[in-house]
Amino acid sequence: METSQLQHTNRQYEEELRDLRNNLLKMGGTVERQIADAVQATVNRDSAMAQRVIADDAEVNRMDIEVEELCIKLLALRQPAARDLRFITTGLKINVDLERIGDLAVNIAERALELNQEPMVKPFLDIPRMATLARSMVKDSLDAFTREDCALAEDVIRRDDQVDQLNYQIFRELLSYMAEDARTIGRGTRILFVSRYLERIADHATAIAEMVIFMVKGKTIRHMDKAQR
Amino acid sequence: METSQLQHTNRQYEEELRDLRNNLLKMGGTVERQIADAVQATVNRDSAMAQRVIADDAEVNRMDIEVEELCIKLLALRQPAARDLRFITTGLKINVDLERIGDLAVNIAERALELNQEPMVKPFLDIPRMATLARSMVKDSLDAFTREDCALAEDVIRRDDQVDQLNYQIFRELLSYMAEDARTIGRGTRILFVSRYLERIADHATAIAEMVIFMVKGKTIRHMDKAQR
Repeated sequence: METSQLQHTNRQYEEELRDLRNNLLKMGGTVERQIADAVQATVNRDSAMAQRVIADDAEVNRMDIEVEELCIKLLALRQPAARDLRFITTGLKINVDLERIGDLAVNIAERALELNQEPMVKPFLDIPRMATLARSMVKDSLDAFTREDCALAEDVIRRDDQVDQLNYQIFRELLSYMAEDARTIGRGTRILFVSRYLERIADHATAIAEMVIFMVKGKTIRHMDKAQR
Repeated sequence: METSQLQHTNRQYEEELRDLRNNLLKMGGTVERQIADAVQATVNRDSAMAQRVIADDAEVNRMDIEVEELCIKLLALRQPAARDLRFITTGLKINVDLERIGDLAVNIAERALELNQEPMVKPFLDIPRMATLARSMVKDSLDAFTREDCALAEDVIRRDDQVDQLNYQIFRELLSYMAEDARTIGRGTRILFVSRYLERIADHATAIAEMVIFMVKGKTIRHMDKAQR
């Protein structure tokens, strides 16, 4: 291959890698907005907003297919080595997590629609706080990925404990609330599910952060005790 | 490269692909057993068995790392094309789903331990039936993968509806049960979670089945309506 041709190919390859990075960030932005909207739809009893979150799922699904095809194309045509290879296989897996985060936002929106058909139950406790935390974890896990920033990834992993604590607290409070008034059990259980969906979103962000550390350090911190990291 | 050397390399490559297949099947066998044991531990109030399920997680985590490293090695050193490439990237993603199925079995076992500290609540409704279904879906999705069997994969996807229905039915029955006697809310909610974990296990099996069809047919059936498939 002549030098000019090779440069052209390299430039294209760099562009494709940049596309992958940008597509994942864009997808991340969309699911972050879905989380925020779904929780706002729940708290404000806004069914129109819940419907929009559900409609946005088509866009996330389109992005999911696009990212996967780009990853496979890069692996097939560019035969990347070492660092790029890790970047692409990590992208392939992050894509799966982002798509599932989108699904969980849709699940929150579905529960919001059900809750809106019943009278208001008590305030939503720490649900909004939990949502803010989970969203920031999604955002930072993706930033850690694009910047290859292990310190930020580790910070995301630490925040998961806070989300778990909030989830447990909400669980306890809702249980005693339902025990006091059996008529709230149906609604209470739905809010319980919203809390679990947010916890699972945080788990996906944590999984992404762990993949980033694996990608950068080349070692698996998944399944290590926190002290070993 | 001489012919004998090339043959040697090819044979090694074939062996590595076979290793990948076998490791995923073995991992699948382990998580299937975890599901069965976790539900048996719940139904029979057997805390020792629940502890074993939790202990088995270390083995699944070890397998997870092994499979991932094998996939990356294959991609890096063998530069596979077309069909093998799809097989390996699919293996990489299936690995993630299997590991999370193992985590969900652990979650069931944790709920079993909590339930065993309280008096027996009513029979476990359709939980065992749901577990049998979810397990068969995990098994068949992996068989569909190794045999590249789209018909079996489609059958797995169809069974997901039955699991969703059972989950909904259990949800309804537990709600009315808790409404009748507020003292059962704590326990009822834990059984509700077990039902959700099983539903999520079936979702992971469905995701694997969809990946298999994508791998074989080279088209994405994820996000298609069932009629379009």
